[in-house]
Amino acid sequence: MTTANPRRSTHPHVAVVGATGAVGVEFLQVLEQRNFPLSSIRLLASPRSAGKTMKFRGQDLTVEALTDKSFDGIDIALFSAGGSISKQYGPLAVAAGAIVVDNSSAFRMTAEVPLVVPEVNPEHIGNIGLKPGQKAGIIANPNCSTILMVTAMTALHRAAGIKRLVISTYQAASGAGAQAMEELRQQTQDVLDGKEAKPVIFKQQYAFNLFSHNAPIMGNGYNEEEMKMVKETHKIWGQDSLPEAARTQITATCIRVPIMRAHAESVNATFEKPMTEEAAKALLAKAPGVSIIDDREANRFPMPLDAQHQDDIYVGRIRRDISQPEGKGIDLFLCGDQIRKGAALNAVQIAELLLAK
Amino acid sequence: MTTANPRRSTHPHVAVVGATGAVGVEFLQVLEQRNFPLSSIRLLASPRSAGKTMKFRGQDLTVEALTDKSFDGIDIALFSAGGSISKQYGPLAVAAGAIVVDNSSAFRMTAEVPLVVPEVNPEHIGNIGLKPGQKAGIIANPNCSTILMVTAMTALHRAAGIKRLVISTYQAASGAGAQAMEELRQQTQDVLDGKEAKPVIFKQQYAFNLFSHNAPIMGNGYNEEEMKMVKETHKIWGQDSLPEAARTQITATCIRVPIMRAHAESVNATFEKPMTEEAAKALLAKAPGVSIIDDREANRFPMPLDAQHQDDIYVGRIRRDISQPEGKGIDLFLCGDQIRKGAALNAVQIAELLLAK
Repeated sequence: MTTANPRRSTHPHVAVVGATGAVGVEFLQVLEQRNFPLSSIRLLASPRSAGKTMKFRGQDLTVEALTDKSFDGIDIALFSAGGSISKQYGPLAVAAGAIVVDNSSAFRMTAEVPLVVPEVNPEHIGNIGLKPGQKAGIIANPNCSTILMVTAMTALHRAAGIKRLVISTYQAASGAGAQAMEELRQQTQDVLDGKEAKPVIFKQQYAFNLFSHNAPIMGNGYNEEEMKMVKETHKIWGQDSLPEAARTQITATCIRVPIMRAHAESVNATFEKPMTEEAAKALLAKAPGVSIIDDREANRFPMPLDAQHQDDIYVGRIRRDISQPEGKGIDLFLCGDQIRKGAALNAVQIAELLLAK
Repeated sequence: MTTANPRRSTHPHVAVVGATGAVGVEFLQVLEQRNFPLSSIRLLASPRSAGKTMKFRGQDLTVEALTDKSFDGIDIALFSAGGSISKQYGPLAVAAGAIVVDNSSAFRMTAEVPLVVPEVNPEHIGNIGLKPGQKAGIIANPNCSTILMVTAMTALHRAAGIKRLVISTYQAASGAGAQAMEELRQQTQDVLDGKEAKPVIFKQQYAFNLFSHNAPIMGNGYNEEEMKMVKETHKIWGQDSLPEAARTQITATCIRVPIMRAHAESVNATFEKPMTEEAAKALLAKAPGVSIIDDREANRFPMPLDAQHQDDIYVGRIRRDISQPEGKGIDLFLCGDQIRKGAALNAVQIAELLLAK
């Protein structure tokens, strides 16, 4: 590691935008747990949250209102405050010399913005970096469902080429924020008490119910969450410049289930080259960021409660897809913490990549 | 309708085996709601439940202990008391002259036993019937997940031939019985109260969690629930005599979610002949036992709460599968009441077919 610009490269000044949200809170925990070598941290949020205090490394930090001047002296800004905040303040942060790691969807599909899962495509960061000669810029954090899936499936894709994916998700409340988690808790208590559930964040009752993901439906009948999985995966796997037919063909059905904070996905993959069950297991066992829970005798496979508050994506039910010729298809089931690897952890890992460059 | 044997054919004597279970209770409700023209009803259960009273058409009926003599004078016996009870008492009931409609898996794959969804393959009942010249015998009720799926997909299959199905399920507590529903309720209250969840029926915490279906895993890595969907669908669609490669190729991943009594399924279908989104919607709109909830603008699609206590299978998210060439694939999402169409209603509909023959 060079020390040409020691302040920026070894102990950056960090800002967290959206510090009081579910992902913001997790940013602080992940930075602390991973002992991220920062010089200072600035907590930014809406004026409504300004003045609140949050603990970081034993100290009480005061949340500041986000303004145009918030990024003076900041090296890395971790954004998780929604797309419109990112669109407005992301470029300002970059203009102030910061590298933005953005958890919103605002810039994910922008051609010059890398969309990065550190275990998968760290090289996409390119010339963005903290050292002299490297540039400031925006790096986008993919959608949670995409992160979970590509973290697990990339090893298989690289080995045998995934031609087609059929995905069904089981998504937790946390993807819609801390209030959605509280809504699930409150509604569940109300239903158990024989009262009526009162939907606020979601239009339908969430307690003891499930429904198609609340993202808007697009012209093709897919919702935005599903199309993120399609398009973001193509970009992360470097397929966005390929002709349509040469990309991995992906269909997804995204469903919200009454779970607090870890998503699950049922994934069916069709391969270009032969992929056996044994090979898939061996590849997944070595894949970074992946843990296998696959005990057929004990009927023990990944569950949201396994993944909750954990870094890894848990994969199980790994088996030959019997609906396709031997070696052609694999079915599996995965779980991952939506707030952690699906958001905060992945962004902090990107910041760690910047330090290591 | 002939009256050659009026007692048996128009007002049969009915027995319900497993009357006090979740499906048993539903049998009584469905028989009552549909005004099933029975002459008498006998409620049978384990000695433990004998002596309990249950309401039917305003009358208190006493539950009797199931014995070898329970089927004397019975025309139709509705069984839902588990596979071993069906294996032991089903043949005794037939020997006593009754037609058994069996909700267990005991006889589903027996070659000479019809496996029937009335909207799909009523003709499989063959010569079993209540009239002179017709015979007593066992008719099997398919597994709940299979019933829901084939009720919805048969219209599409008949129109364009389904080559392959990729299914992921979201299965309710009720599939494991009334005690499992109570376990979900109790655990959820415990978790909300900050107490530890106590798994009894299932090995893992069920509250705010989901897990791979608890059915045993077979040699090929699929669990029995998944293989039921594969094999029962082949039998219902009359493909069990076809060579393996000529059948619909099916893969399923069955997951238990914290929902009380309606299952959901995400279904991806590949067709032999062209099937457009419009054609699929038109076929489903006319399909018996199917209702469409598919409002893209309002983001309103089938949910377990829609299906709960309802007869129909609710289908939505009907769209062209963008991972396949136009006209080749359809994605959809369905919900159906597991206890009702998935069990009791389907069996009573079979009994109604016997009356109408």
